[in-house]
Amino acid sequence: MSERSERSDGTVGFVSLVGAGPGDPELLTVRGLRRLQAADVVVHDALVGTGVLALAHPDAELIDVGKRAGAPVPQELINTLLVQLGRDGRQVVRLKGGDPFVFGRGGEEALALAAAGVDFEVVPGVSSVVAAPAAAGIPVTQRGMSASFTVVTGHRQRGESPVNWAALAQAGGTIVVLMGVAQRAVIAAALIAGGLSPATPVAAIRHATGEDESVLRCTLATLADAPVQSPATIVIGPVAALDVVRGLVDALPNRH
Amino acid sequence: MSERSERSDGTVGFVSLVGAGPGDPELLTVRGLRRLQAADVVVHDALVGTGVLALAHPDAELIDVGKRAGAPVPQELINTLLVQLGRDGRQVVRLKGGDPFVFGRGGEEALALAAAGVDFEVVPGVSSVVAAPAAAGIPVTQRGMSASFTVVTGHRQRGESPVNWAALAQAGGTIVVLMGVAQRAVIAAALIAGGLSPATPVAAIRHATGEDESVLRCTLATLADAPVQSPATIVIGPVAALDVVRGLVDALPNRH
Repeated sequence: MSERSERSDGTVGFVSLVGAGPGDPELLTVRGLRRLQAADVVVHDALVGTGVLALAHPDAELIDVGKRAGAPVPQELINTLLVQLGRDGRQVVRLKGGDPFVFGRGGEEALALAAAGVDFEVVPGVSSVVAAPAAAGIPVTQRGMSASFTVVTGHRQRGESPVNWAALAQAGGTIVVLMGVAQRAVIAAALIAGGLSPATPVAAIRHATGEDESVLRCTLATLADAPVQSPATIVIGPVAALDVVRGLVDALPNRH
Repeated sequence: MSERSERSDGTVGFVSLVGAGPGDPELLTVRGLRRLQAADVVVHDALVGTGVLALAHPDAELIDVGKRAGAPVPQELINTLLVQLGRDGRQVVRLKGGDPFVFGRGGEEALALAAAGVDFEVVPGVSSVVAAPAAAGIPVTQRGMSASFTVVTGHRQRGESPVNWAALAQAGGTIVVLMGVAQRAVIAAALIAGGLSPATPVAAIRHATGEDESVLRCTLATLADAPVQSPATIVIGPVAALDVVRGLVDALPNRH
């Protein structure tokens, strides 16, 4: 234990970067639940469901670092907060939707904590990139239909290189798009231009595993005009027509 | 509840397709743990760790459908077994390494159960495609380094189309290869031919989150000759040089 994360009263701080899973509190991991119940402060994103937060100790302090009035809390500020809480000897859970390392910027927080000498760990979670399609009965891989899948964000930060949609179209396999609702017309057009059929099945899943879960099915040709609300997980590829939970091998409307 | 899954004594059968996570029993989900503790029969793969199996009820029957003498149990036989157990009124957990829908053939089992009218559910798990790299300190996505990732198997079933490695090389982002150890020379050559630099970092993780976890770091140029043992999760891309848990932004040997 480093001296820097020890408080004057001898308490040693510790930060757990915990994946909260897709929404349903029962899809939290056993270790994630333990850490959440033992934490004296929980730093969470807006996307973490109230059911998961309710599992924290009643005396725990909850700090919401999700978007404020549409503007995200700067990542550097979150890093600084985690370091400070660790140095103050707190037992911290940094709770992120899904998994900390799947578009969760957990890597940046880990590097900041390591550089500051604060003890920490990473507790993986069930990622919504797999669990959201699963909730709709869609396996991201299925023998004879898809032997690979690519996960990509539709929303790029300034300075990041654009997605090579044409290459993804050529690569085959399932494409899972996060944060892509606003850009869905551009994405669909780019994938069709890259070689995917306009009839390629698409499914958009909202509030996966939550009580108000909804699934919209369409095709690449109709995605632009489909009434998809943000945030949603968009699945593109032949598996998007499946609903294995209901035994359907073609769950798309008007395809017969 | 369908009549077909009800036993003569009134017991109704139920099958849970449960993701066991990457190995560490504490990375099982809360629901997965509940189902495992309540099951009277557990049908499991060889890749599921003994620590997870030890969580089953002591009176539960354990059925190993992993590979026998190198030959996999035919999937059709597993489907038939699950249907029969459900019809017999058993409380079944079908336990799969990682997540049931990530190369777990859970989709085929779900379709078979639905067709037979046996009640079932899917309980997602922490996939090793994200948790294995995480255990080595590698985030599959990292701002400024990788804004997408593709998961692919190196081993293809007969009749499946080959992987378009050139397109994956062009797509950018992290590549996670499962079941690719035997084919690693071919894969590395194809990715280099497709445009990736021979200096692209690579990490191979074995027994992730287990007690005998090991991580080997190399590059695409040296992957073919690196002493990687099967099974391993192979991560390819700039993030494979990271070890954020130890605060390292270049964990590769001999790169300085």
